[in-house]
Amino acid sequence: MSKQSKTQPRNVTQKLFESHLVSGEMKAGQEIGLKIDQTLTQDATGTLVMLELEAMGLDHARTELSAQYVDHNLLQSDNRNPDDHLFLRSACEKFGIWYSPPGSGVSHPVHMERFGKPGKTLLGSDSHTCAAGSLGMLAMGAGGLAVAMAICGEPFYLNMPKVVGVKLTGKLPDWVSAKDVILEMLRRHGVKGGTGKVFEYYGPGLKHLSAMDRHVIANMGQEMGHTATVFPADDAVRTFLRQQEREDDFEPLTADTGASYDEHEEVDLGKLEPLIALPSSPGKVVPVREVAGEPIYQAYIGSSANPGMRDFAVPAMMVKGRQVHGRVSFDINPTSRQVLENLSGLGHLTDLLSAGARLHQTGCNGCIGMGQAPATDQISLRTVPRNFAGRSGTPEDKVCLCSPETATASALTGVITDPRDLDMDYPVFDYSRSFHVADRNIRPPARHPELSVVEKGPNISTLPQFDGLPDSLTVPVLLKVGDDISTDDILPAGSQILPLRSNIPAISEFTYARMDPSYPERAKQHQDTGSLIVGGENYGQGSSREHAALAPRYLGVRAVIAKNYSRIHWQNLCNFGVLPLRFTRADDYDDIRQDDELELEGLASALESGDKITAVNRRNGETYELCHDLSDRLVRMVLKGGLLNMMRDELAA
Amino acid sequence: MSKQSKTQPRNVTQKLFESHLVSGEMKAGQEIGLKIDQTLTQDATGTLVMLELEAMGLDHARTELSAQYVDHNLLQSDNRNPDDHLFLRSACEKFGIWYSPPGSGVSHPVHMERFGKPGKTLLGSDSHTCAAGSLGMLAMGAGGLAVAMAICGEPFYLNMPKVVGVKLTGKLPDWVSAKDVILEMLRRHGVKGGTGKVFEYYGPGLKHLSAMDRHVIANMGQEMGHTATVFPADDAVRTFLRQQEREDDFEPLTADTGASYDEHEEVDLGKLEPLIALPSSPGKVVPVREVAGEPIYQAYIGSSANPGMRDFAVPAMMVKGRQVHGRVSFDINPTSRQVLENLSGLGHLTDLLSAGARLHQTGCNGCIGMGQAPATDQISLRTVPRNFAGRSGTPEDKVCLCSPETATASALTGVITDPRDLDMDYPVFDYSRSFHVADRNIRPPARHPELSVVEKGPNISTLPQFDGLPDSLTVPVLLKVGDDISTDDILPAGSQILPLRSNIPAISEFTYARMDPSYPERAKQHQDTGSLIVGGENYGQGSSREHAALAPRYLGVRAVIAKNYSRIHWQNLCNFGVLPLRFTRADDYDDIRQDDELELEGLASALESGDKITAVNRRNGETYELCHDLSDRLVRMVLKGGLLNMMRDELAA
Repeated sequence: MSKQSKTQPRNVTQKLFESHLVSGEMKAGQEIGLKIDQTLTQDATGTLVMLELEAMGLDHARTELSAQYVDHNLLQSDNRNPDDHLFLRSACEKFGIWYSPPGSGVSHPVHMERFGKPGKTLLGSDSHTCAAGSLGMLAMGAGGLAVAMAICGEPFYLNMPKVVGVKLTGKLPDWVSAKDVILEMLRRHGVKGGTGKVFEYYGPGLKHLSAMDRHVIANMGQEMGHTATVFPADDAVRTFLRQQEREDDFEPLTADTGASYDEHEEVDLGKLEPLIALPSSPGKVVPVREVAGEPIYQAYIGSSANPGMRDFAVPAMMVKGRQVHGRVSFDINPTSRQVLENLSGLGHLTDLLSAGARLHQTGCNGCIGMGQAPATDQISLRTVPRNFAGRSGTPEDKVCLCSPETATASALTGVITDPRDLDMDYPVFDYSRSFHVADRNIRPPARHPELSVVEKGPNISTLPQFDGLPDSLTVPVLLKVGDDISTDDILPAGSQILPLRSNIPAISEFTYARMDPSYPERAKQHQDTGSLIVGGENYGQGSSREHAALAPRYLGVRAVIAKNYSRIHWQNLCNFGVLPLRFTRADDYDDIRQDDELELEGLASALESGDKITAVNRRNGETYELCHDLSDRLVRMVLKGGLLNMMRDELAA
Repeated sequence: MSKQSKTQPRNVTQKLFESHLVSGEMKAGQEIGLKIDQTLTQDATGTLVMLELEAMGLDHARTELSAQYVDHNLLQSDNRNPDDHLFLRSACEKFGIWYSPPGSGVSHPVHMERFGKPGKTLLGSDSHTCAAGSLGMLAMGAGGLAVAMAICGEPFYLNMPKVVGVKLTGKLPDWVSAKDVILEMLRRHGVKGGTGKVFEYYGPGLKHLSAMDRHVIANMGQEMGHTATVFPADDAVRTFLRQQEREDDFEPLTADTGASYDEHEEVDLGKLEPLIALPSSPGKVVPVREVAGEPIYQAYIGSSANPGMRDFAVPAMMVKGRQVHGRVSFDINPTSRQVLENLSGLGHLTDLLSAGARLHQTGCNGCIGMGQAPATDQISLRTVPRNFAGRSGTPEDKVCLCSPETATASALTGVITDPRDLDMDYPVFDYSRSFHVADRNIRPPARHPELSVVEKGPNISTLPQFDGLPDSLTVPVLLKVGDDISTDDILPAGSQILPLRSNIPAISEFTYARMDPSYPERAKQHQDTGSLIVGGENYGQGSSREHAALAPRYLGVRAVIAKNYSRIHWQNLCNFGVLPLRFTRADDYDDIRQDDELELEGLASALESGDKITAVNRRNGETYELCHDLSDRLVRMVLKGGLLNMMRDELAA
């Protein structure tokens, strides 16, 4: 960035990038490196991160703060999950990392409650890490490997995004809440509209949104494919930190007067109405009244998308003294120990239970397909961030996303209901009320890490070593998929699969298994000789799970050719040595059939020189011009077979 | 029973048997039939019971009260469990059965809270149904078909047990509670010592045991292999029913002065100390102090073995203002909505959570291996009734059974701890305190069952209707097996197969599949024309599962010819219309080859007259003389095609 530019008025996003820039220029689209102050890992991705730290011989986390949460795999059907918990706990001791045990809550709200700090960067191995943008942080999801690197003190590399300034005006009407704001953004932009962009919210409407309301909006920015969502650190953030008994951590961070944005947008909060995302995409948003009257099976409250006290207290006040419809499963999933303790202490929990709620343990639970699957052909209304097909565990499920108000109104009536159509006063939630702060069982880094011994259960094993990318590939297209393939499609979550996350050969058996049960077996037949996957638009959207790159690579996938990619999965492919190529002519996608054999020659020189790569289809002799978006550094990484190989070489040198 | 005996002083057990006797004599060891007043089913066994009721064409339950609980399969990883829940709910509407939905609690405490009545009989398709003996009931566990018959108004047949009178004297010391009483009984008798016996508790010590304390003792009587455990209906029962706002349901039931017992035993409560059952048998009981100091991984509170308010409130009072050991997973499993609501309302829940407890949903959960498995090689202290190896889900687990006091003391210290060794006053639990009664979402029988439609998800199929046995059979021997074939050989259990329990066509695909993978396919080719199985000694040993008879019958098996049979499987074959024949000359077994075709003629008259049956082998013209052990009633049943067909005819008449 030029010296002049420093004197220009800056928006919050520019200030955050500027204060953490370690390489590159802050020009949209260019790769930059950022210093990472804090990291967050959860158990589903964290075991691998810890194995990576161990493999690299790290002594002590080099961040200001790193925290490990256990929130995803809480079921413990056998020894594997609890063994992982003990492994994570002991690895945290070893590496100087905070450990939040099972029962303490979902990473994002707990991190916000205990550790979030305005002006800091946070990198997390969970796609909803972006939620911490609510506190004036630059918070981003990434693959576990990138987070492991950050824990080692390495910068995080990404392409400088554009900054969209979203001006908020007006005030939310009764029965309309933060979830409806982000659903409106999804209605406008769809699930791809945020690619390469930071959404920075500002304007007079902000003062009506609490820090936790902003969390709701920042969290689901991910569903638009954003790079990050940023809010200023203002009085609402100070209030939140004071309630968390951390006011000392407050530092104001606001845009300079006259700051500008690359793109402009405005939301008049006063004009919003209750919205709902229909099955099976967070982008399929319509007004609730358009689909009102449909019978529902389930109303599900919880998840990082609606994690705050008000997201449970408002439903509790709505159902107090009433009874939910006899047919509805009203599932309450507390998001943090603090929220649960306060709900219990203030009597809200009793009101929920008396109305017929089913209370579940604190954690991610049904949001990631760990229980609470709906019955066949039955509608489930959920306050969670995602409704991709089958994510709930039920094939061809009918999951809708909505606010706690809409879910609760529908629980009371038994049919999809706009909460404004209830004959009820909107409950008043006191946002200024102080919390009972519950953090005593979150363990600080050990005082004597040298005394710690890492505990590894029988299901935790070393990572496979991968070869570098060969200069030429003549390999079959073993799978051709369409647009918007999610990492849930590539490697489903769920109680059968998640426990295998530290066992790459075993988890690879589930690669694309829901879309094409024969795929893993077919791929294994080409495990040593290699294969390709051809995809459409927005390949790899959704969860940041690295296994969606690692498992295909283990099965022999050497490259993916797609129309374009979702950012985190694209990075994960590079990290694990799978080459992500793009069609220069999107129509070429139509010409390729599954089982075609493609020939790619001179890969190394083409990648290094930036030349186009030509793929020849052996079936008909057609050629396809392919390109890539890899930086020089990523080219070196992919040629070496991935980041782990590169780091191993660098550390050995 | 002779007329004179009615004037003799009777104990409670004799009164219960006498008032329900419909056939047989009350002499120990003789078969008697009892009228059943109430039934209980849970979801794991209930789906098949409902399908059986449907197959028999039942209009309305003929018991005084039948209740269906959903407490076992709460996880909902996919559509199958929630589909089962909707099926059960709709079947309850159809058949006039109470329905307790997921989240309402474990069957045994909920039945006690809402429905238990002194002087009544209760038959349940769950082995811990015996817990209701705490209210002066005769409560027994049985197979699903026996419970289905009871719902149809049929008697329950069993061998008259001996009655052991257990005299309780003294008063439990501080830190010793009801769990220690039943652990003492298990220490004395082991896991088989109760076979063929009813344990009836009486004496001055009783007045210090609340009804829910007695539930703890009656529940785990099952672990001694008892027929039932019986307590009198006295003031403690009246108090409990008053707290449940059901005092009208109280009727005193006590032993007559001078009543005697077949065997005598005494427990001085004042001399008991905290006890613990070590891995992996409920009978391996030692004083806690003998194993104190061992580090623990988990302290688990909950299950039907310690389900009362006091079993959660005492731990809450113990940990109030304290913090459980950082290494211990302190798992709280509320046993009923009522217990959870009262814990929440009284502040106990907040105290548990603040101390670091992990709160789970209301239900059976980890007690039946649905979650909360301990880590490898780590000790788990549980208040549950069973610690059979692997039942927790973890192979070679180390589960110990103890009181809530011992589990909580150990959670605080991190090692196995006799609670008397804590520097703490024993918390005072007020047993007379009234409860908040929570039963609004337990659904009563429908007012208009004729309007109900049974909802069947894709994994639930109507029971196939079977023809009666033809008078002559000319059918192939599609399978010849050896001695000691178990029901596990016939139809294996396991996670792949068990979820198909309500889908006979699907589960039949696994018939004998481990011993002969081609068998199901071969049998299906003769599904309509019929086939035979030839077996050796002790055919059908092991688990009582009915599917081991139902699935072969579905595949077309019309008769088994064996040297002899295991008793329960023999009964199950009759129940499902498969004729169990015996060789009169065991050597004939050797002459028959797989795929031989046998001709059996004049079956009906031979079965009815008791004549021998002759089978002609079409391959070589050899003849085999066969016999059977069926009573007249069983002959009629098999000729009709099984018990369901017979009952259908009777109900229609």
